[in-house]
Amino acid sequence: MTSRFSELNPPARLLLGPGPSMVHPRVLRAMSTPLLGHLDPQFIVLMNEVQDLLRMVFEAPDALTIPVSGTGSAGMEAALCSFIEEGDPVLVCVNGYFGERMIDMAMRYRAEVHRIDVPWGEIFTPKQIDEALKAQPAKIVAIVQAETSTGALQPLAEVAEVVHRHGALFLVDTVTSLGGIPVKMQEVGIDISYSGTQKCLSAPPGLAPLAMGPRAMDVLKNRKSKVANWYLDMTLLLKYWGPERTYHHTAPISMNYALREALRLVEEEGLPARFDRHRRNAETLWEGLAELDLKPLVPLSHRLPSLTTVTVPDGVDELGVRKALLDNYGIEIAGGLGAFKGKVWRIGLMGYSSRPENVITFLGAMERILR
Amino acid sequence: MTSRFSELNPPARLLLGPGPSMVHPRVLRAMSTPLLGHLDPQFIVLMNEVQDLLRMVFEAPDALTIPVSGTGSAGMEAALCSFIEEGDPVLVCVNGYFGERMIDMAMRYRAEVHRIDVPWGEIFTPKQIDEALKAQPAKIVAIVQAETSTGALQPLAEVAEVVHRHGALFLVDTVTSLGGIPVKMQEVGIDISYSGTQKCLSAPPGLAPLAMGPRAMDVLKNRKSKVANWYLDMTLLLKYWGPERTYHHTAPISMNYALREALRLVEEEGLPARFDRHRRNAETLWEGLAELDLKPLVPLSHRLPSLTTVTVPDGVDELGVRKALLDNYGIEIAGGLGAFKGKVWRIGLMGYSSRPENVITFLGAMERILR
Repeated sequence: MTSRFSELNPPARLLLGPGPSMVHPRVLRAMSTPLLGHLDPQFIVLMNEVQDLLRMVFEAPDALTIPVSGTGSAGMEAALCSFIEEGDPVLVCVNGYFGERMIDMAMRYRAEVHRIDVPWGEIFTPKQIDEALKAQPAKIVAIVQAETSTGALQPLAEVAEVVHRHGALFLVDTVTSLGGIPVKMQEVGIDISYSGTQKCLSAPPGLAPLAMGPRAMDVLKNRKSKVANWYLDMTLLLKYWGPERTYHHTAPISMNYALREALRLVEEEGLPARFDRHRRNAETLWEGLAELDLKPLVPLSHRLPSLTTVTVPDGVDELGVRKALLDNYGIEIAGGLGAFKGKVWRIGLMGYSSRPENVITFLGAMERILR
Repeated sequence: MTSRFSELNPPARLLLGPGPSMVHPRVLRAMSTPLLGHLDPQFIVLMNEVQDLLRMVFEAPDALTIPVSGTGSAGMEAALCSFIEEGDPVLVCVNGYFGERMIDMAMRYRAEVHRIDVPWGEIFTPKQIDEALKAQPAKIVAIVQAETSTGALQPLAEVAEVVHRHGALFLVDTVTSLGGIPVKMQEVGIDISYSGTQKCLSAPPGLAPLAMGPRAMDVLKNRKSKVANWYLDMTLLLKYWGPERTYHHTAPISMNYALREALRLVEEEGLPARFDRHRRNAETLWEGLAELDLKPLVPLSHRLPSLTTVTVPDGVDELGVRKALLDNYGIEIAGGLGAFKGKVWRIGLMGYSSRPENVITFLGAMERILR
């Protein structure tokens, strides 16, 4: 018989949205490698290698790292549910869509959630967080380093110092930063962090790298109640990804092949060179946007190199421009989320997408469409 | 710089354990296809196709189908958490490891869990379930069609009739059956079912096909409380995989490419031919085992064709035999889980692994090792 559906034949795309980013050909090739079983001694060697490479990219030699078997949001939920017990006070810093998501999740685990807000696109000062913790102590302080909905880059070092002075755990979303801008988990003092594979790491979506430092591990080991989630329960996952290798679920073999290859590419390039490249290509983009009279929403002082949010000029058809980019040039960028819907474009230059030729292709296309 | 780790180069394996099974070369090739964005109009076409193909393999034309972005256990948890509200009575039928796992999960969602047990390897009669429901009504009755830990095949049609007579939802684990033995979701009257991609569908692990019939959808729509899990919340996922296509999380693009190709292969073969093939190759295996004086644990009357559990003969080194299969011939089979640890081997003939040449390779290797 024949299938009703034809062979897979997607159109060519240049992915310059907030993720997925372009996947390096070596990573695509790794995906097509025949599988090992998930309990094969050789796959266990690979698990160790992936965990080691994750410590490299988080810059956290003392962290326990796990590629959670889900996308970035599963990483967010794993980080929250594994450290929250019913009634625990949690402070969430909200300056975009993903801060709101953390609150939604934390509530489901019956945390006593406190929030502080600054307008979308802005960032928090250490003082704001200090005051919030003085008013209301917290077990966990959660913040987003790189808000995918706004393009704002939150500085972390002084905030970490404040959080620890108050005796809380510092939980940081690095979904749109890991591998593209410095995270420096250990130096900064981040206790828990999660990311996604499809942003600056340029592997396909499907895994969420998660790292836990020594303070977090202590808290995890001293939980009084069971984690209210089985699949993302770090106390169980630590037995699977720790020395015991106790079966929990079947790891996504091919996705781990992809992540290993993507992290090998990071190691070959070196983190400093990789951060420089992201910065350099973003600057070229920003110069080109200025020439087109397009204005980044976030000031240079805290603008992300990996994701630029551009205000849609008055009278310009936000969706029409994106449609023309996609239909005429195969270029994907994104619109705004939530409060920013229809008001901004989001342009990602992450991982393998962050190349000079991609920047000029995009600028050339925008010039022709807006002219 | 160079990476500390060499190019990915796993040894060749013949995967004859309880999953992952061998992945067809066409599926491996689909995995290496460059990515579309998860909101690309062409990816949305692909989502529709995958959902349609899942209705085909579940034999549930009226079901809503979603490939959950996690492995089979995430499918189990999605099925349970989305239909359980605090205090709901749930009856779980336990005849192996995965029944126990359902109980662990249902407890985390604060269900009032009742259980009935038969010894591992045996199956339930409709009468046992009828009596349990007479003693204690339930909102959901959960059972495993194909117990991966024992190799027992649970008949479903009469049980479904009993469950519905008591007004409960019928939730069935089809992880090790979907695509290898008939599930007939609509005809049997299954309300909720989940599976994994890495068993009889022969895609890599990483997605959990989930199907919900009309009765289940009604219950879902009338929930009073929020699902106590964000990532696996079917009320949110329905908006993403339903006509609204509201962003929830980034779907694992490459894994959906793989699943689409694996399901195209199912459609090309045709379900009846595919079930015949699984049966025929299992019979060849069983004949060969008899010649080697190896005894299947489960009687022929309810033995799974996709997974055969073999009792380890007295005086034979269970682990030693598996190690010899792997080291000398590159063949993977599995040992026992839980109560069966050290006592059984588990031999899978699922999907692309279910081929006559694989059966004789395995039998030839076992003969040489046991001789």
